[in-house]
Amino acid sequence: MSDRYVIISADAHAGLPAEQYRPYLDAAYHAQFDEYLAERQAHRDQALRMNYDYIMGWETENEEGLRGAWDMEQRDKELDADGVTAEVMFADADAITGMASPPFGAGLSAGAITDPELAFAGARAHNRFLAEMCARSPERHGGIALVPITHGIERSVAEIEWLAAQPGIRGVMVPTMWHDRLPYNHPDYDPVWAACQAAGFPVHTHSGEAPQDEYNENIGIYLAEVVWWAARPAWHLLFSGAFERFPGLKFVVTEAAAYWAADMMWKWDQYMGGGHTTKKMAALLQGKISKLPSDYFGENIFIGASTMSKEEIRRRHVLGCDVVMWGTDYPHPEGTWPHTQERLRSDFGPVPVEDARKLLGETAARCYGFDLEALRPVAERVGPTPADLGQDPAARTDPEEVRAARWWKDEYELQAPG
Amino acid sequence: MSDRYVIISADAHAGLPAEQYRPYLDAAYHAQFDEYLAERQAHRDQALRMNYDYIMGWETENEEGLRGAWDMEQRDKELDADGVTAEVMFADADAITGMASPPFGAGLSAGAITDPELAFAGARAHNRFLAEMCARSPERHGGIALVPITHGIERSVAEIEWLAAQPGIRGVMVPTMWHDRLPYNHPDYDPVWAACQAAGFPVHTHSGEAPQDEYNENIGIYLAEVVWWAARPAWHLLFSGAFERFPGLKFVVTEAAAYWAADMMWKWDQYMGGGHTTKKMAALLQGKISKLPSDYFGENIFIGASTMSKEEIRRRHVLGCDVVMWGTDYPHPEGTWPHTQERLRSDFGPVPVEDARKLLGETAARCYGFDLEALRPVAERVGPTPADLGQDPAARTDPEEVRAARWWKDEYELQAPG
Repeated sequence: MSDRYVIISADAHAGLPAEQYRPYLDAAYHAQFDEYLAERQAHRDQALRMNYDYIMGWETENEEGLRGAWDMEQRDKELDADGVTAEVMFADADAITGMASPPFGAGLSAGAITDPELAFAGARAHNRFLAEMCARSPERHGGIALVPITHGIERSVAEIEWLAAQPGIRGVMVPTMWHDRLPYNHPDYDPVWAACQAAGFPVHTHSGEAPQDEYNENIGIYLAEVVWWAARPAWHLLFSGAFERFPGLKFVVTEAAAYWAADMMWKWDQYMGGGHTTKKMAALLQGKISKLPSDYFGENIFIGASTMSKEEIRRRHVLGCDVVMWGTDYPHPEGTWPHTQERLRSDFGPVPVEDARKLLGETAARCYGFDLEALRPVAERVGPTPADLGQDPAARTDPEEVRAARWWKDEYELQAPG
Repeated sequence: MSDRYVIISADAHAGLPAEQYRPYLDAAYHAQFDEYLAERQAHRDQALRMNYDYIMGWETENEEGLRGAWDMEQRDKELDADGVTAEVMFADADAITGMASPPFGAGLSAGAITDPELAFAGARAHNRFLAEMCARSPERHGGIALVPITHGIERSVAEIEWLAAQPGIRGVMVPTMWHDRLPYNHPDYDPVWAACQAAGFPVHTHSGEAPQDEYNENIGIYLAEVVWWAARPAWHLLFSGAFERFPGLKFVVTEAAAYWAADMMWKWDQYMGGGHTTKKMAALLQGKISKLPSDYFGENIFIGASTMSKEEIRRRHVLGCDVVMWGTDYPHPEGTWPHTQERLRSDFGPVPVEDARKLLGETAARCYGFDLEALRPVAERVGPTPADLGQDPAARTDPEEVRAARWWKDEYELQAPG
């Protein structure tokens, strides 16, 4: 066995060209689907008017590789060339004009759909396609299915149970925002969390949605907030006790960066145990939390950090190499594809191999249940070696540095609330 | 002249016992005021039932000092004993049972008031009291008046103009949340920003409000979010171009910590100038922003960080000693009063004197226009010396360390968008 990395991308996208979802969509919705397609096309036309050169350049240059959004043979070629052994696949493969989106916007904007029937119809169409796509090589390609839990709890449970029987489905994505529906801290969602725990499905939000109706088209405000809205369900689950009621439940925040998690762990831990002002608060949290909040990270809370920044890689010990999962974001233009190996070489050179193995694959394997032994033959064929990434094989992780990275535990002499 | 510190507390509170606001309130609202008082009392009774020992302990032990919320002679004694030379005063002096709150909740929860008439009536009552209170020694006590801008723009402008003529009023506080009213990025607020710029009034939000109707009484969620909701208007102003249209406008986030600002500066700066994925974004921001976002900090954006954590003090160079302002939060129990000097000694020992002077007073003097020369005699009488804080007078700030603290400017080779 070589020292090649088993790279598991914790953020990738798959989706059919919009019109090809028709055979996967219940016939009752075909008329509404025609209207939706016309809207999609109008949206694309407008995007082209504003940004023709950029869009056409990207699409022309990458025509073949972009077909991997739905064509598994092509997809495997792209992953191979990028050195990626396995992946999980979210919806909405076309990040630029949204033409590879599930019907009715049931992917990254599912929370904004007003008609629950359309939300479920669109989600089911994508899930049928996704299950078919994953079944071809489920050990390598994990599907993150769509479950619009804000639009119906019983129907969501039924969908999760159907998904649990599909090989290759490895998790579910829920709407990023609940809008005027039940917040995720509400116990009415317990049947959903129970079904996800039973199926072993991590629950995801993926960045994209934000309350844009408040922004008056100021794109900077969107950029400043979008990460927060995607991460928000993490603390709504944690502080409402969902991880105590469902200890096997996992929640993953995807493509919403990772840097923010360190300060959140600090402040949340501090509320539980530090100083005279917070003792009253800690008392009020009893029953919802039995560990320090940071101790739920890597057990119940994971971060699909996509193409991490160098700074996030430097912060890996405070964030946790057992929390954060790297990803290519294939086939989105803001990701590393088709230059993943160059990017890894540029970013992971100074990182000890044992840390890089976790960030690039082992943590995702643990979160999603990938079988590293079964993936080894693919990795032997396509995975880069530490030498390929310019790493020093003698570099070791200092356990004391890892321990001290969460400095606040010492500074506030924190104990788990018990 | 000695080396005593001129400490200016950028977070303190003043307010009458609720029923004593009556003479300051327009007579037309007296009947509604009776109802409000009864609600307040019921709220206090409930708090006492839940937490009798803690509340009565605090109130009994500090009875005399708490009177400084409205009694200026007592207040000066408390500031003197704490070593504090000057301060700015927000509403809501009673943080525990809310009995020193402006009528109708017009202080820290003004955004939640549904009737604009009550919002303005309550604000005006407090502002009349506050102007009277500050007039006694305006060089030492700055009032942060209440202007419920979400409840009426023209009336807010009129109120700001009235306030501008009151000695000692040094800024205004606006509702932390806009709820279902106009977001602060909306150009309809421009007359308010213009009036504040003309009066030299920094605009504040102060932590307290959050969308608690979504929390289902999970206090941990409130703790996890409350800082974000208070800080949120900063980027709504910045990215909608308010600081370009009103270059003299200052926005201050108070008692919402400071730690979060460093990562925000990094990410916002990066959007403007870093990498191929953000160039498109930078183009869309042209016209709203002419500098790197971090360059607005210390000019247009300030942070009233109250009783800073040791970690925030350690992060002072990335946050900016010209951005962050220390405060006692007097007379709130989560503040440093009546043990401010001990706390300063415990936290500022390792800090060079020049940094501490900025954090503890000079930045606030610049933000609020305090006259440091006029304050010198008070400081000579009450201010601690560097030796009192256990500081090494030979310790110097390394300018290269200050420059490098905002590491992302080098890493992304950032230039102002121009």
